Amino acid sequence: MNPSSVPEPEPEQVEPLRYLSKAEAMAIEKELLEDYRFGQQQLIEMWGHACAVAVTRAFPLSSFTKKQPTVLVICGPEQNGSVGLVCARHLRLFEYEPTIFYPKRSQNMLYQDFTTQCEKMDIPFLSYLPTEVQLINDAYNAVIDAVLGMDGVQGDGKEPYASILATLKQVKIPIASIDVPSGWDPESGNQDGISPDVLISLMAPKKCAANFAGKHYLAGRFLPYDIQKKFELNLPDFPGTEHLLQL
Amino acid sequence: MNPSSVPEPEPEQVEPLRYLSKAEAMAIEKELLEDYRFGQQQLIEMWGHACAVAVTRAFPLSSFTKKQPTVLVICGPEQNGSVGLVCARHLRLFEYEPTIFYPKRSQNMLYQDFTTQCEKMDIPFLSYLPTEVQLINDAYNAVIDAVLGMDGVQGDGKEPYASILATLKQVKIPIASIDVPSGWDPESGNQDGISPDVLISLMAPKKCAANFAGKHYLAGRFLPYDIQKKFELNLPDFPGTEHLLQL
Repeated sequence: MNPSSVPEPEPEQVEPLRYLSKAEAMAIEKELLEDYRFGQQQLIEMWGHACAVAVTRAFPLSSFTKKQPTVLVICGPEQNGSVGLVCARHLRLFEYEPTIFYPKRSQNMLYQDFTTQCEKMDIPFLSYLPTEVQLINDAYNAVIDAVLGMDGVQGDGKEPYASILATLKQVKIPIASIDVPSGWDPESGNQDGISPDVLISLMAPKKCAANFAGKHYLAGRFLPYDIQKKFELNLPDFPGTEHLLQL
Repeated sequence: MNPSSVPEPEPEQVEPLRYLSKAEAMAIEKELLEDYRFGQQQLIEMWGHACAVAVTRAFPLSSFTKKQPTVLVICGPEQNGSVGLVCARHLRLFEYEPTIFYPKRSQNMLYQDFTTQCEKMDIPFLSYLPTEVQLINDAYNAVIDAVLGMDGVQGDGKEPYASILATLKQVKIPIASIDVPSGWDPESGNQDGISPDVLISLMAPKKCAANFAGKHYLAGRFLPYDIQKKFELNLPDFPGTEHLLQL
């Protein structure tokens, strides 16, 4: 047989990155918590740390034009808000100056502990969000949106979230949203919603991110290989010991 | 007044890095847990992750001479052992092939959860440690010592730790110890003890590390500034978003 007639091996099929439905994202989290026995505290810590690193990539200290490296972190009442609290704490250790706005504090002890960690680290908490958007534009270099995440639509129209979203639609400084931009549906997105410049997807991107045109970071290095396979996530390779990458 | 007669400002005094007594290390941890409301799960996750990154620096995959990037992680019954479990899990995600030896499993639910996370990720657990040291030298590229840590002396002479330490004294492959080399006193060290090639200090180095001649990594980025000041740790600056550095 003529070796030249041997058919070339098929190039290895690189399956495209999977964009998750809300049900799939919830199923993965359930499996991590129930089968793998991860703790919610542990997951929120890993996610928040990865988000802080992503913020330093999207907005390096050297890129800031204001005197102080200020960022405003707006935290919602549920898990997404706690990821924001952890993100703020690590940003402080990365020599940023985060300020937190956390209008509805949870009764959940775990979330309260994350709050105490920030308070004890002297991170300032705002008692209200200025309605005059120019004040926000002047005071901060960027906004981290950790308000509603996957629970986006539940906050729809309710206060204080309606006002927060109205404000975020008007700010001129860049916004980085954690997991799902606040007010967006995790699957269909929201054409009339806020327009973040940066999106940080946790574990795997949600369907709403498929056409996201800004800087998109994936923070997913901590997912066990079996879960990646089972849910056919087709995550890209993370370089070195990085736990996030830009898509 | 002649400006040239103005005395030069004193050069900023750089205080030397502090080496902690066991009591000081325990006081810091108590303050993190009780005042700052950090969770033990959260701290162990951060420490274990930092240890895994340190292992990749000390032993890059490219430095291994064996076919498989195997490492043996030996875990003790207490907190140091759980840091080892988290380290093993992240090493797996960094494409190492950890094997765990964990002879005395804790009844502590938190430690059990860290164990389950490793088991579900298909990290193999050894049922016994080969007494023939050559088998260890042949099978693994390095050993991670997460056996006794700060509780070193408590394990003194007791089984299975006496045998483990006897084995670790004989292995020819490099050893990386987490926080305090097993069997060492956290303050006075142990001249007859094991001789790790690498030491990964958590938060701040302990007194026993003052004359450590191997590669010494500090994993301490997560300490609030007020604690660093209160305990006069004089930690060096961590570059960028790194949470560890080589001393």
